[in-house]
Amino acid sequence: MTLIVAKFGGTSVADIARIERAAEKIVKETEQGNKVVVVVSAMSGVTNQLVDYCGQISSMYDVREYDTVVSSGEQITSGLMALALQKRGVTARSWLGWQIPIKTNAIHGKARIESIDTDELHKRLNAGEVAVVPGFQGVTALNRISTLGRGGSDTTAVALAAALQADRCDIYTDVDGVYTADPRIVPNARKINKIAYEEMLELASLGSKVLQTRSVEMGAKSGVPIQVLSSFGDEIGSALKGTLVTTEDKIVEQELVSGIAHSRDEAKITVVKVKDVPGVAARLFDPLAEASVNVDMIVQNISAEGFTDMTFTVPRGEVELAVKTIKENVDLQYNDLIVDNNVAKISVVGIGMKSHAGVANKMFKTLAEKNINILVISTSEIKISVLVEDDYTELAVRSLHAAYGLDAA
Amino acid sequence: MTLIVAKFGGTSVADIARIERAAEKIVKETEQGNKVVVVVSAMSGVTNQLVDYCGQISSMYDVREYDTVVSSGEQITSGLMALALQKRGVTARSWLGWQIPIKTNAIHGKARIESIDTDELHKRLNAGEVAVVPGFQGVTALNRISTLGRGGSDTTAVALAAALQADRCDIYTDVDGVYTADPRIVPNARKINKIAYEEMLELASLGSKVLQTRSVEMGAKSGVPIQVLSSFGDEIGSALKGTLVTTEDKIVEQELVSGIAHSRDEAKITVVKVKDVPGVAARLFDPLAEASVNVDMIVQNISAEGFTDMTFTVPRGEVELAVKTIKENVDLQYNDLIVDNNVAKISVVGIGMKSHAGVANKMFKTLAEKNINILVISTSEIKISVLVEDDYTELAVRSLHAAYGLDAA
Repeated sequence: MTLIVAKFGGTSVADIARIERAAEKIVKETEQGNKVVVVVSAMSGVTNQLVDYCGQISSMYDVREYDTVVSSGEQITSGLMALALQKRGVTARSWLGWQIPIKTNAIHGKARIESIDTDELHKRLNAGEVAVVPGFQGVTALNRISTLGRGGSDTTAVALAAALQADRCDIYTDVDGVYTADPRIVPNARKINKIAYEEMLELASLGSKVLQTRSVEMGAKSGVPIQVLSSFGDEIGSALKGTLVTTEDKIVEQELVSGIAHSRDEAKITVVKVKDVPGVAARLFDPLAEASVNVDMIVQNISAEGFTDMTFTVPRGEVELAVKTIKENVDLQYNDLIVDNNVAKISVVGIGMKSHAGVANKMFKTLAEKNINILVISTSEIKISVLVEDDYTELAVRSLHAAYGLDAA
Repeated sequence: MTLIVAKFGGTSVADIARIERAAEKIVKETEQGNKVVVVVSAMSGVTNQLVDYCGQISSMYDVREYDTVVSSGEQITSGLMALALQKRGVTARSWLGWQIPIKTNAIHGKARIESIDTDELHKRLNAGEVAVVPGFQGVTALNRISTLGRGGSDTTAVALAAALQADRCDIYTDVDGVYTADPRIVPNARKINKIAYEEMLELASLGSKVLQTRSVEMGAKSGVPIQVLSSFGDEIGSALKGTLVTTEDKIVEQELVSGIAHSRDEAKITVVKVKDVPGVAARLFDPLAEASVNVDMIVQNISAEGFTDMTFTVPRGEVELAVKTIKENVDLQYNDLIVDNNVAKISVVGIGMKSHAGVANKMFKTLAEKNINILVISTSEIKISVLVEDDYTELAVRSLHAAYGLDAA
C-alpha cells in the first residue's frame, strides 16, 4: 500500500471551489488504495492579510504573537479540507501542529522542525483515515505555536513524508512541473520528468521558485521522492505526470544539462582599489555576513601595483544594507564603491557535467557568439553561473537552451 | 490589588484602530495597578465569513472541523491584541483555549466549560503580565478545539472571572449599558446603574441582547459582578460608568420595576378545539420539546363542552418546525392550527415586584387605557409578560415606561 503526502499551495486552495477540486484528487488517491496525508497552505491572500495586520500594529512585533496570528490561515484551510473530504465519504480529520505534535525549536517565525510524532497518525492512516495537516506550523517546547517561515508548507509536507517514511510527496502547485527554462522566455522549453535533488536545489536557489530550498534539502536527506505537479488539471499524483525530484541513481536517462535558470534579483557591488594584502576578503565579508547580507558570486581581480578590485553580488533588496555595512563597519581603504543593479545571473545546471568536460566552454562560446559580455563567473560541481547585463537575459537563456539541445523537438 | 477580566466584542475589535483603542483602555487599567485578563471576540465579520465557508462545503458539516475553522477568528484577534499591548510597553501574551487549558465537554459547536486551570495564569498575572484569551473556544478531552456557540465570548469572560475569582468582569460593547427600555423606542429611557442577575436574565432572554444568557447565569452562580460598558468612549471599566450586574443585596436603591423589555421575535400558535382530557398538554408539548422547539408562553382556555384551545408562543424561526411536528408527531385530534406572526411580547421586569402587589394591575390598566388588547399573559416572580399585536409594540413600551416612573427627569 502506497503512502502519499500531498501538499496544496495557496492558489490551489484559493477558494471553496478549489478546495473541493483538491479534495476530489485525494478521493481518487484513496480509491486507488493509497493512504494519504494532505498538507494545506492558507487560502491565497490570507497570510498576507494577517502579516499586514501585525505590521499595522508595529514593525517590531513580537514574533511569538505573529506566529499565533498567521498560523490561523492554514488552520482554517485544514478544517475546510477535512469537511470537503468528509462530504465525499472519506473519513478525514484535521491535525494541527500542536495536535500531532510537530515539535520545533523556539526560533519563532523561522522555526526548524525537530521531531514529529507519527504513532497516532500511522494508526489513523492504517484505519483508512485521511489526515489533513496545516502546513507552515509547529509547536515549541513551551507549548506555543511556531511557524516555519514563508514557503514553510513545502517543508511541512516533506518533513512529514520523511517522518512517516512515505513513498512519495506530491507538491500540487500552479505549474505542471519543473521546466528546462522559464517557458515565458523559452516557448519551447520542455517539462523535466525526473531531476536529481542537487539539480533541483540549484534551480530552486537560482530563481525557479517551484519548491522551497529547505524542502528539497530535506528530501535529499531522507530520500523521499518529491513530485511537482499541477493542481488544476484532472490528473492525480499517482499518474506521475509531473516532475519527480529524486536521487541521482533513479534517473536512468541522465542529461548532460538539465536546465537553464536565470535570476534578475541580483546586484553587483564593486569595491574599487583596495590594498591587496592577506585578510582583505575576510575584512570585507565578515561584517557583511554579520549583517546577514547574502553574498553570492565573488571575484577578485588580478592585483596591480599592490591594489585590487573586489566584486560580488547580493540580492537587490540587500544592496542598501550592504553599502551601509561596508561604509560603516568595514575597516578597509578603497577608492570607490560601485553598485550595478542592471545585471542578471544565468546558470546552466546539470548533474551530468560532473563527469563531462567542455560544458563551461560551450556556455562561454555561445554567449560570445551572441556578443553577450560576461561580467562575473562562478561555478560549482553541477552548475555554471555567469552575470550578464540585464538586457541580455532572454537572449542568453534562449541561446543556451538551444545550444545544450534542450529545445523541444 | 484588583483583578479584572475585560472582554471586547466583535465591533470593539473590528479593525486594527479599534484593537489599539481597546489596548489603550487595558494600559490605563494596568496603570491603576490592576491585574487584567483580556478576552477578545473575532474581528466583526470574520466569524460569519468562516461559518459561510463551512456552509458552502456542506450544510451537514462535521462540527468538530467547523470548530477548528471558526475558532481561528478569535485566535487572530488574541495575537493582535497582545501585539498592541506590547507596543505600549505592557508585557502581554496570548493564551489559546488549549494552552490554558479551558477544558470543555465534547459537544462541539455548543460546548460547555468543565474546568479552567488557573495556576499558570495567576503566576503570570502576579508577575505583572496581561493575559489575552480568545473567547468562544476551549479544548476537549480528545485534544480537539471546541467552541461554545455564538456569543460564547461573554461566557469565556465570565467563566474565567469566576475561575480566577476576579473582582469584576467588564464586558465592553457597542452600547454604554443596559437601559430601562430600548432607547430607539423610548427616547428618554435611562441607563441602569446597577441591576440584579435575575433581572438581567429576564431582560437578556426578552430581547435586550446586551449579554448572553449563559454568561449571566454563570455570573449569578459565581457572584462575579459583570459590568456592561461602551468600548467607544475614553472611559475605562474601573470608572464604573456602565451598568453593573450584581447580587440583589448589593443594590441599595432597589426600584420596583427595572425596565420594560420587548421582543418581536415571537409567533403565536393556537391548536383549536382539542379534547380536554388529562394528558393533553403533555401529548402536545412533549413532541415539541423533543424537536427542540422553544415553547415560551402557554395558555389553555377554559373548557367548553369537553373541548379546549391551546395557545402558545415560539420564536418566529421555529414556527415551521413546530407546525410540522404537531402535524406529524402529535397524537391529538384538533379542528384547526392557527399561526399568528404579528405579535410582540412586552415585559415588565423588576426584582422589587417580588414584595409588591399591584405591579401587574398597573400594567393591565395602562394597556387598557391605550386600547391595547392583551392576547396572552405569563408571569414569573420578577416579570410580567403580555403578548400584544405587533403594531402596538412601541405604544405599549412607551406607555408602560412612563407609567412605572422610568422616564428620565
